Amino acid sequence: MEQHANGEISSEEALGQIRLLSCRTLGDMAKLDTKRMDRIGIPEAILAEGKDKDDLAEIAMAHLEETGSVIITRISAEQLGVLNDIKLPEGCILSHNPRARTVVLRTAERAVGRGRVGILSAGTADIPAAEEAKVVASEMGCQVISEYDVGVAGIHRLFPCLEKMMDVDAMVVAAGREGTLPAVVAGIVDAPVIGLPVSSGYGVGGNGVAALMSMLQSCSVLTVVNIDAGFTAGAFAAKIAMRKPI
Amino acid sequence: MEQHANGEISSEEALGQIRLLSCRTLGDMAKLDTKRMDRIGIPEAILAEGKDKDDLAEIAMAHLEETGSVIITRISAEQLGVLNDIKLPEGCILSHNPRARTVVLRTAERAVGRGRVGILSAGTADIPAAEEAKVVASEMGCQVISEYDVGVAGIHRLFPCLEKMMDVDAMVVAAGREGTLPAVVAGIVDAPVIGLPVSSGYGVGGNGVAALMSMLQSCSVLTVVNIDAGFTAGAFAAKIAMRKPI
Amino acid sequence: MEQHANGEISSEEALGQIRLLSCRTLGDMAKLDTKRMDRIGIPEAILAEGKDKDDLAEIAMAHLEETGSVIITRISAEQLGVLNDIKLPEGCILSHNPRARTVVLRTAERAVGRGRVGILSAGTADIPAAEEAKVVASEMGCQVISEYDVGVAGIHRLFPCLEKMMDVDAMVVAAGREGTLPAVVAGIVDAPVIGLPVSSGYGVGGNGVAALMSMLQSCSVLTVVNIDAGFTAGAFAAKIAMRKPI
Amino acid sequence: MEQHANGEISSEEALGQIRLLSCRTLGDMAKLDTKRMDRIGIPEAILAEGKDKDDLAEIAMAHLEETGSVIITRISAEQLGVLNDIKLPEGCILSHNPRARTVVLRTAERAVGRGRVGILSAGTADIPAAEEAKVVASEMGCQVISEYDVGVAGIHRLFPCLEKMMDVDAMVVAAGREGTLPAVVAGIVDAPVIGLPVSSGYGVGGNGVAALMSMLQSCSVLTVVNIDAGFTAGAFAAKIAMRKPI
Amino acid sequence: MEQHANGEISSEEALGQIRLLSCRTLGDMAKLDTKRMDRIGIPEAILAEGKDKDDLAEIAMAHLEETGSVIITRISAEQLGVLNDIKLPEGCILSHNPRARTVVLRTAERAVGRGRVGILSAGTADIPAAEEAKVVASEMGCQVISEYDVGVAGIHRLFPCLEKMMDVDAMVVAAGREGTLPAVVAGIVDAPVIGLPVSSGYGVGGNGVAALMSMLQSCSVLTVVNIDAGFTAGAFAAKIAMRKPI
Amino acid sequence: MEQHANGEISSEEALGQIRLLSCRTLGDMAKLDTKRMDRIGIPEAILAEGKDKDDLAEIAMAHLEETGSVIITRISAEQLGVLNDIKLPEGCILSHNPRARTVVLRTAERAVGRGRVGILSAGTADIPAAEEAKVVASEMGCQVISEYDVGVAGIHRLFPCLEKMMDVDAMVVAAGREGTLPAVVAGIVDAPVIGLPVSSGYGVGGNGVAALMSMLQSCSVLTVVNIDAGFTAGAFAAKIAMRKPI
Amino acid sequence: MEQHANGEISSEEALGQIRLLSCRTLGDMAKLDTKRMDRIGIPEAILAEGKDKDDLAEIAMAHLEETGSVIITRISAEQLGVLNDIKLPEGCILSHNPRARTVVLRTAERAVGRGRVGILSAGTADIPAAEEAKVVASEMGCQVISEYDVGVAGIHRLFPCLEKMMDVDAMVVAAGREGTLPAVVAGIVDAPVIGLPVSSGYGVGGNGVAALMSMLQSCSVLTVVNIDAGFTAGAFAAKIAMRKPI
Amino acid sequence: MEQHANGEISSEEALGQIRLLSCRTLGDMAKLDTKRMDRIGIPEAILAEGKDKDDLAEIAMAHLEETGSVIITRISAEQLGVLNDIKLPEGCILSHNPRARTVVLRTAERAVGRGRVGILSAGTADIPAAEEAKVVASEMGCQVISEYDVGVAGIHRLFPCLEKMMDVDAMVVAAGREGTLPAVVAGIVDAPVIGLPVSSGYGVGGNGVAALMSMLQSCSVLTVVNIDAGFTAGAFAAKIAMRKPI
Repeated sequence: MEQHANGEISSEEALGQIRLLSCRTLGDMAKLDTKRMDRIGIPEAILAEGKDKDDLAEIAMAHLEETGSVIITRISAEQLGVLNDIKLPEGCILSHNPRARTVVLRTAERAVGRGRVGILSAGTADIPAAEEAKVVASEMGCQVISEYDVGVAGIHRLFPCLEKMMDVDAMVVAAGREGTLPAVVAGIVDAPVIGLPVSSGYGVGGNGVAALMSMLQSCSVLTVVNIDAGFTAGAFAAKIAMRKPI
Repeated sequence: MEQHANGEISSEEALGQIRLLSCRTLGDMAKLDTKRMDRIGIPEAILAEGKDKDDLAEIAMAHLEETGSVIITRISAEQLGVLNDIKLPEGCILSHNPRARTVVLRTAERAVGRGRVGILSAGTADIPAAEEAKVVASEMGCQVISEYDVGVAGIHRLFPCLEKMMDVDAMVVAAGREGTLPAVVAGIVDAPVIGLPVSSGYGVGGNGVAALMSMLQSCSVLTVVNIDAGFTAGAFAAKIAMRKPI
Repeated sequence: MEQHANGEISSEEALGQIRLLSCRTLGDMAKLDTKRMDRIGIPEAILAEGKDKDDLAEIAMAHLEETGSVIITRISAEQLGVLNDIKLPEGCILSHNPRARTVVLRTAERAVGRGRVGILSAGTADIPAAEEAKVVASEMGCQVISEYDVGVAGIHRLFPCLEKMMDVDAMVVAAGREGTLPAVVAGIVDAPVIGLPVSSGYGVGGNGVAALMSMLQSCSVLTVVNIDAGFTAGAFAAKIAMRKPI
Repeated sequence: MEQHANGEISSEEALGQIRLLSCRTLGDMAKLDTKRMDRIGIPEAILAEGKDKDDLAEIAMAHLEETGSVIITRISAEQLGVLNDIKLPEGCILSHNPRARTVVLRTAERAVGRGRVGILSAGTADIPAAEEAKVVASEMGCQVISEYDVGVAGIHRLFPCLEKMMDVDAMVVAAGREGTLPAVVAGIVDAPVIGLPVSSGYGVGGNGVAALMSMLQSCSVLTVVNIDAGFTAGAFAAKIAMRKPI
Repeated sequence: MEQHANGEISSEEALGQIRLLSCRTLGDMAKLDTKRMDRIGIPEAILAEGKDKDDLAEIAMAHLEETGSVIITRISAEQLGVLNDIKLPEGCILSHNPRARTVVLRTAERAVGRGRVGILSAGTADIPAAEEAKVVASEMGCQVISEYDVGVAGIHRLFPCLEKMMDVDAMVVAAGREGTLPAVVAGIVDAPVIGLPVSSGYGVGGNGVAALMSMLQSCSVLTVVNIDAGFTAGAFAAKIAMRKPI
Repeated sequence: MEQHANGEISSEEALGQIRLLSCRTLGDMAKLDTKRMDRIGIPEAILAEGKDKDDLAEIAMAHLEETGSVIITRISAEQLGVLNDIKLPEGCILSHNPRARTVVLRTAERAVGRGRVGILSAGTADIPAAEEAKVVASEMGCQVISEYDVGVAGIHRLFPCLEKMMDVDAMVVAAGREGTLPAVVAGIVDAPVIGLPVSSGYGVGGNGVAALMSMLQSCSVLTVVNIDAGFTAGAFAAKIAMRKPI
Repeated sequence: MEQHANGEISSEEALGQIRLLSCRTLGDMAKLDTKRMDRIGIPEAILAEGKDKDDLAEIAMAHLEETGSVIITRISAEQLGVLNDIKLPEGCILSHNPRARTVVLRTAERAVGRGRVGILSAGTADIPAAEEAKVVASEMGCQVISEYDVGVAGIHRLFPCLEKMMDVDAMVVAAGREGTLPAVVAGIVDAPVIGLPVSSGYGVGGNGVAALMSMLQSCSVLTVVNIDAGFTAGAFAAKIAMRKPI
Repeated sequence: MEQHANGEISSEEALGQIRLLSCRTLGDMAKLDTKRMDRIGIPEAILAEGKDKDDLAEIAMAHLEETGSVIITRISAEQLGVLNDIKLPEGCILSHNPRARTVVLRTAERAVGRGRVGILSAGTADIPAAEEAKVVASEMGCQVISEYDVGVAGIHRLFPCLEKMMDVDAMVVAAGREGTLPAVVAGIVDAPVIGLPVSSGYGVGGNGVAALMSMLQSCSVLTVVNIDAGFTAGAFAAKIAMRKPI
């Protein structure tokens, strides 16, 4: 890259980074980022919460047509009903995970599996967020090993579960209330650990706030996502796992 | 107690509870609650922080004269200097614990030892609060066993320490940052566990806030005191331990 | 315990602490900590809130089978309906406390009564949390004495109630809004006092926040649990009371 | 007042309210509200904190000249030094209250005494705010009765103090940390009670936050001012007391 | 009062203050503070919100029987239905104010009118809180003058309203959102002003939080109550107004 | 303006500013500020949220009669139903924008168009707030250019949209969640940029809080309105645009 | 711009917007955005706070060399000392405003004056922020009219000041504590009003928090900047004012 | 692993995970986790802040002796002085990075380089946190490419920098104030992006709070660490990079 004598840099080259970028406009409602998978390796996903059920279906179909698959998160029963009623494209498979509240639509082949992701949850209430992470990591082609309800109130439940995850490439650890499990796990295992706080608990620090703060304060080395952000945690873990050469 | 036909109760008897109560007035500055030890079993203590150094000395001497001992917490170097310079009563012993930032003045015999209190700290930064708890529990006549720097980032350090505390009557567990240790311990030991959050850590949840919230959200059964409230934690643990018959 | 010359300690002995630990796996939903009572003296309890009504019943039955009793807290009418409809094991007794929103299922004998717990509430709105504490302390074998609606706005109501609790081993004091009562009581009585803030009140400091903060700031010696955490407060008080030799 | 047929009102009369209003401009620094005492019965006061020491002196002298007296709050040692050094007008009296951190300058006669104000503080740390309230209420011509260090941790200290205040027209009750005292007092006495939270206490709810919240949540009828706002509390109490006919 | 040579004070006299105190016990649900009106001049009031509709009716009837009147605040349609259906005592009048969401039950004569209270609201949304204040002040025997929707966005609306309130003894000024009106009014009028923040507004500072904070920060002299605490504001204003000799 | 020798200023002239001010009183419910448009250039608007549907209609009709138009924001389906059912004045046009949740009633001509306003939204969830801004700016006579769903997660979508807005006089940029878009735009374009945070997103910083804070912290020069305050953002942008001479 | 048949847009044109952009690199410390003035009309400014005094001088000199002027905000005495000591370029003028804590260095001519900006402050403590706004607006070529200490506690002081600002193009209104003044002004004047909250006040809502929230909640139409962000407020006002054709 | 017929699992195997664990006890001050590098791949690090300077040196020497290297973060000038004065072991190299406020002591060879980490900072104030990340990633054997001051206020500076980091294995993006940069970068690059919020900015959302919240709310896929937690961000990035086979 050319660098001017006075330290200035031209930015003609900046175009290189964004030349692949394109989008598809749906009325005055949405501009689909259809090359995201190529650019940054994250599949298309739609947050269903707060969207009109017909708008949701229209956006989902457009994504499906463009890229061959789409993940819908936090889908309601009513929104699911619309998807079940519309005519899907030839060969399209709809997979609904009720605990994760996700739907995956897919016409293309799923990516060839690469890398392994481990997912733990501290309690029963943390399972929906953990399952959301599992869905996206699986869609990104990773093998996922999961164990639920292994929190620190009875820490002996943890060790046998960790044994099954000795060789994972990345771990997602979901925990609500006090949010302790990720720090304990990150002090034991070698794989990078992503803390996923969950909106459980009442009173001060409830709804996942104490869990998030506790993970941010962890003496162990871990990174965190926002409360209930299972999609982000799963996608990030899969990005790490997928870096492993096949 | 008499109960009126219409459900009313007279409160003449209410005086019974408060007849022991008396206080000593120091100018227009303080009213000393000199019978607290008799009434609720907690020794006299003065929070030095924010007090004029001469006022502090005057109040301390008055307490000492009334009850034979006094605990001063969060004492500064300057305040300590005044205490070191004044003429103490005959037979008075001054004990300074620099890590706890406490001074104990005592002319009377210390209470006969009863009960055992265990004190753990998660990190090095938690030692001052833990030591403050230790000072007060010791003053109340308990035997104190303490182990420091046994946090969950390397949880293997915890088990040998717990072994030494198998038969304590109550435990104080001090922890800053993520504040995880009390919940782990309360899931393992039989003695009542008091969580003592410590004002360490920076960023969101720092200064003990995440630690306190995490302890409040604990799935394990424990109670908490405020951040850095070593005196309260130690006194409460000692109250439990002292209930054991001699 | 062996201690290496260089200060290192082996952790072979650590196994001692956790050898009793075992759990029972229910599908990929829950891992029951079935030896908790033996280990730390706290009975099995299930937070019903947020659980599917059939999952709740399944987990409850498994706990009942393992340990002979189970406490269910924050149960909804619908969840209660399922429990009322299923066939309980031979000799099982179902006790529903509507104010506490608890159900206790029991086939085994309740523990022999040891220790006395006093429970006060400041207002009418605090009764549910106080009753939850009462249920668990009773289940743990304690004798419970309770008095409700004795808050400081008319402080004369307090003294006759305290007289009835002169010889308790521990007290739970529930209070919402300004949360003042625990501090007043802890300044009068000899037994350890546990503050139980309650989610009443509106505006700034409402939903129990002012009550919790006020208790944390108390000049009197007391420990606290989170807002509405009646189970924790009652179990902790019972742990103290049960230490009394029979 | 004229009212238009269509419900409109002219606002010509609005001028009546503000005709008395005038101010004196000091450079581009301040516009003195010199008729405040006539308009709303509150004397001139200057918050010294954050002001340049020479600007402070200039503003104080201008107020003194206009109205015959001025109250300066939160004055620093350095600012006091300037005031002590300048030449005061003939007959001017400077009264410094070190605990309240106030200075009163006065050339005019103080108002004829009307009404009685009672001031209580819960602890020693609350005395500065309580004294600030006392200074302003005294300047407004009220008789002030004060008692300090009568907090609820030893509630028996309260009753004898209240006896001395049986006939006050208004009360200011200062309290830090848990801020309980105003609610207790307002449940006992007949006079209007103003809660004055004080910035003591550390940890969650510290610096007066729990005290303020607790007072706002009080079941008793009381109003509050902001943390450490002794001036406002004292002036408000005096306004009530001064309504009593002479 | 006797004062011991060593500064101790006996507390025998403390009984004087509380001898009038009595209460009536309703099952294990409530302890009615039936002499509150005599003691502190505030009438009986019941917060309906969160109470069972039959419990509410029972408590209301008991208060009515004891004292001849009772105020119920924040009553729901369903709770009102129960009160409308039960047989009221001979001569009892039920007054329902739907905007204030209050019901007053009364068999005794209302107190002889003394004093005048002015009530302003900044916006339409502030009327319910203002009306609650009006109901209680009226019940306490005050004459109430009210004007609504006079906020600072069109400040010219304020002046004619203030003219009507020239001779009130105390003012309640209700305001939501930015909560500006009380400070403006307190800078103009001579009567003590009580700020009543209202839970309107969305976004940061919404639900009355900005209004409360703004009133606490006011440069003008005013005191505040919690958000939506119309009862407290009205009762406090009436306490001031009632001090005027008849 | 006359200025007194001693620096005092009379305020007789102050009347000049407020002489135009008048209002229309609707019962004891509202005081309409009917000359607002003349005074400050902002049209009449009514926040429907929280208002009784019949009161809303009455206030709207009164505004319409006074000024020839009125904007109603955050209208519910039920409130809309009442407006659709009542008989509108001769020549009145009702325009309902369902995405913006606004209704405009108009009998007068709309102002002659002056100035251009650009409106961007970062995501689909931000469209309602953006549309509310669009409605008010259009009603104030501006030409509005809008583009939606151009957020930074795929920043390439932004540039073509900006090209269409090269010559606008002011921009409103709506963004929820991380709220990044306004800062990016304000670093690129010459027109004044108003950040409009939107209540999307869950977890810590959700409901628009992170968006608002992020905009307040922006290194770029922009001003902000509260979360979801589309009316304010649109009206402010239009005020800027309308300053352009015709 | 080309638009693909399927709604996709190429982003080749996106380069147009950023072709002017260039920067100058100073070691590994800073990348100067030297064309900002051309691009968005805001002059170069450096926040001195937190910068090493020598780094600050180096960055300032580089900006000065590139663009002919630079504004330094929040400069400390020590940093100012360095600037005073270094050799400035030929013809460079250094203007220090101690109340604003700014330094302006200038070798080029200042822009030709266009537009008028009015600046008000509510209190004396708000002057530094107001002066910072004044410095930047003046540097951008605007005529600035300012009046300080005109807050609502004595609202009569406001009207004469507003008269002097009848024809300004934009107003900045600075206020701390309750932050009321901007809403009052925006309800009176025609020019766009920017609220500038100031970090004064103590207790809850102190340090400008209540002021900011109150401005965000304003019923009047105004936009806000962050607490003490005088530079942003002044630059934004000047951007509006500069749009007036010369 | 053996699994009991009733679903119970023994935990004998649990010992496997923790057999490597050992620690070295330093008085009653610290328990060094000396096998952390072997266990989880993170080198020894000591947070200097808040530690006594002699204690710090003692702990550092012990770590160095055990593992051959140690990283000290947030070291003060005084603490550095002690380290400079003590006699280091034969062959020990001390590397001080003043911008990062780190010291590295090393006697062993540094790990063989594996993987590449990219580090960006948005502004000059973010450099210390970014440098702390750089130090730890370098110590863990990674090649680090860094570029500073490329924030979104002039987004054209970003693209040339990203070009230099096309093939990194993980990225750390540091940003204070609005914290926008990580989301923009994560929308462009393929490598996993870790957001590192920095404690810059004043007012609401200052000290890194807005930056952290904004990163948590990001629509792009990224994970975050706490404010200023450069060590954690760098170590986590290096853990990802080191997974690449050599």
